[in-house]
Amino acid sequence: MERLQDTIVALASGPLPSAIAVLRLSGPAAIDAAARLAGLKPSALRPGRMRLCWLTEGGERIDQALVVVFRGPRSFTGEDVAELHVHGSVAVVDRVRAALGRLGVVAAAPGAFSRRAYLHGRLDLTQAEAIADLIDAESPDGLQLALAALDGQVGRALEQLRGPLLEAVAQVEARLDFSTEPDIAALDESTIAPTLGRLAAQMRGLAATAIEGRRRLHGARIVLAGPPNAGKSSLLNALAAHDRALVHDRPGTTRDVLEVPATLGGRSVVWVDTAGQHTASDPVEHAGIERAVQAMRAADVVVWLLGGGSVPGDGSDGSDGSDVVPGELLPASAPLIWVRSKADLPAAARAPRPADPAIDVLEVSAATGAGLDALRRAVLAALEGGADEPRGVATGPRGERVVLTRVRQAAALQRAAEAVERALAALGDGLPLECAADDLRDSLAALDEVVGQVGSEDVLDQIFARFCVGK
Amino acid sequence: MERLQDTIVALASGPLPSAIAVLRLSGPAAIDAAARLAGLKPSALRPGRMRLCWLTEGGERIDQALVVVFRGPRSFTGEDVAELHVHGSVAVVDRVRAALGRLGVVAAAPGAFSRRAYLHGRLDLTQAEAIADLIDAESPDGLQLALAALDGQVGRALEQLRGPLLEAVAQVEARLDFSTEPDIAALDESTIAPTLGRLAAQMRGLAATAIEGRRRLHGARIVLAGPPNAGKSSLLNALAAHDRALVHDRPGTTRDVLEVPATLGGRSVVWVDTAGQHTASDPVEHAGIERAVQAMRAADVVVWLLGGGSVPGDGSDGSDGSDVVPGELLPASAPLIWVRSKADLPAAARAPRPADPAIDVLEVSAATGAGLDALRRAVLAALEGGADEPRGVATGPRGERVVLTRVRQAAALQRAAEAVERALAALGDGLPLECAADDLRDSLAALDEVVGQVGSEDVLDQIFARFCVGK
Repeated sequence: MERLQDTIVALASGPLPSAIAVLRLSGPAAIDAAARLAGLKPSALRPGRMRLCWLTEGGERIDQALVVVFRGPRSFTGEDVAELHVHGSVAVVDRVRAALGRLGVVAAAPGAFSRRAYLHGRLDLTQAEAIADLIDAESPDGLQLALAALDGQVGRALEQLRGPLLEAVAQVEARLDFSTEPDIAALDESTIAPTLGRLAAQMRGLAATAIEGRRRLHGARIVLAGPPNAGKSSLLNALAAHDRALVHDRPGTTRDVLEVPATLGGRSVVWVDTAGQHTASDPVEHAGIERAVQAMRAADVVVWLLGGGSVPGDGSDGSDGSDVVPGELLPASAPLIWVRSKADLPAAARAPRPADPAIDVLEVSAATGAGLDALRRAVLAALEGGADEPRGVATGPRGERVVLTRVRQAAALQRAAEAVERALAALGDGLPLECAADDLRDSLAALDEVVGQVGSEDVLDQIFARFCVGK
Repeated sequence: MERLQDTIVALASGPLPSAIAVLRLSGPAAIDAAARLAGLKPSALRPGRMRLCWLTEGGERIDQALVVVFRGPRSFTGEDVAELHVHGSVAVVDRVRAALGRLGVVAAAPGAFSRRAYLHGRLDLTQAEAIADLIDAESPDGLQLALAALDGQVGRALEQLRGPLLEAVAQVEARLDFSTEPDIAALDESTIAPTLGRLAAQMRGLAATAIEGRRRLHGARIVLAGPPNAGKSSLLNALAAHDRALVHDRPGTTRDVLEVPATLGGRSVVWVDTAGQHTASDPVEHAGIERAVQAMRAADVVVWLLGGGSVPGDGSDGSDGSDVVPGELLPASAPLIWVRSKADLPAAARAPRPADPAIDVLEVSAATGAGLDALRRAVLAALEGGADEPRGVATGPRGERVVLTRVRQAAALQRAAEAVERALAALGDGLPLECAADDLRDSLAALDEVVGQVGSEDVLDQIFARFCVGK
């Protein structure tokens, strides 16, 4: 990890080769280093003005580049920043990096630029996270969510919670400090208790928006699961042929779990095809099943394809299609849709119906398309039923809803709410006021964590390590 | 294909997502369109000055961006150019493209920006090709080659050929036009013939540098070939573990032909592992063999691994390791190195030596590393022996050698040389002067094609279609 006094460099544009590449420098030596490569005096580089120059080292030409600088604090990071716009060539970028290395410029860690912007007070943590969300956004809806957060919406919503909380802390602590003074009235529980109750509910409400935020940003995850040969891949292909969004490479997509981003009824969704579930003794197969189970645990809706039928345990996989009970695998919260595929085939060649007549089964055929629209409607209904959208904390001049996108933010708000509820209980139980005061201070600390009063470097490391390099 | 009066846009930076993305516009409406999205008057965008603004459409925010414009003819393309530096998000870039589309801006074809730069006289064709070479360059040597061409070195070398050629054309045509005038002396063959001979040789010499140029830019291709189980992949891994360069994704790398860029004795090389060669009846296998044969035909050196030994036709592939004679597969020009692998195993478990005692075989072991250095030396010797570097046409104030990198350029120079040689023969054979004049005119036309007097759109399409988008 580089230190803050280091000058850092990273390729801020995408992978090479490409028409152009942008190398971004930040730190005390950024402008000097750029000027040195460009063969100019640092003062010749005026902030925000692009200058066409040859980059050279030791008299050898590296590339013709557009060079631009921004002086701190009026820059993204708040530090001196330089950008070198070169041809998007591996040889050029390697050569420039090497030359900068000899000038003492070090490679930036992922998220290092955003981290510096945060440390220099240019962004709060929710805004820094919004930049990462913005870069990951693939849908117009996700984009608007990220832009709102980048605009500081989350910070403003927290200010609305922080004010009354601070007031409550002051009230409790006043009585604590001057508990022997006759002029200070006893704490009026009839006014403070409703305030704290409302605060806790608002905090929980805001925290709960993170599920919606994740869905809107990354798409609701609809997981196709079931025994091998149940027809998952054919079904995915049939659905995807119609709904498939522009597919971009997604890191983390494994061979065992195929993800197809799509839109469904105007929503951003991700169809997830898992390896067949069955009890496998083969360790390789077992790893595939583990991943499928994880995919189902992270699902917003699970589409379970019944197995058996024409291949009721054909011996090759030791499965008879009924040896995995979905209930064991599923989180209680994800709605489950039962599907019986291959509706174009005779009954004998298909999975048997479940014994339990209460189970509602959709009949579909990937081959003819029969039942696919009904399946789409069922998925949408499950998503809408499951959403149960909590009322967030309204903020801003337009009173727009605030939606979180990060588990980190939601978790801190949950802790803030729990601390307020502990304070409320302490007051109700007539415990010493110190207890309630401590709890309210804890709540305030948890709230401040969301926007960035983060004590430890480790936590910052964790947050920024997931950012892309160059940001 | 967009028309020249269209305004075009392309993502000039690499694939998304990335920290930042650069959308580049060129054409009559480029600055207006950028200003419109930025909510500014076009005159508010001063050339070369980056301006931070919110991009919006219909009041909806798209992203905060740095916007910069360059006015033609003082721009890369010679037209009005605008750049939008946005967050490297799929959603943002899609949204900006859509908004630009509604303003009449169309998607740029590959190479469209360079093509416009050429059409507006900002670059000759060799310089445009040098930009593509620069972007593809992966080694310092390749980079210097591309930079020299970008600097116009090839154009200057051609000027040196063009002057004397034009002079010869003038001499011949003068006698043609005024063949009846007594004052015009007959053509003095004793001076023109040596001039034309020297010109043809210089043209051929320059054309021949393209082989060297291709090797220096893309690396000499060392192809490992031989029957299945001869040990090609193990050998490649053993060599690559030591020599492997930074590996970048290379388009065109198929599953059947693995390419590993590396450096060998300071040279840029590519080790190529082919599928095993053997006579296959299976059509899938056959396609693999076809690709391997193609790889060998494009090889600078072929390393042939003897087969047989412990798997002398194990039945699975119908091969006994001797059913393909390298000679049938190889172009006459690529040097061949015979290798017998698995030197760590007893003789019975290895390939038999070739019956012909004249064949010099290197004994190597991928497992112990024995013989690998000898193999590397043999490859280097073969590369140096095979190079037989032709003397190019010296040019420029420093008299540096000119090296071509393009088959297109070399082919045109070959045609120019052939036409001069035909003229020379026509003069020698005492044919009418018209014949020689026609030939010399053809030579001049071929020469002019190299830098860009290309008559047809189709040829330009072919040249620029191989460029990357955004360049």
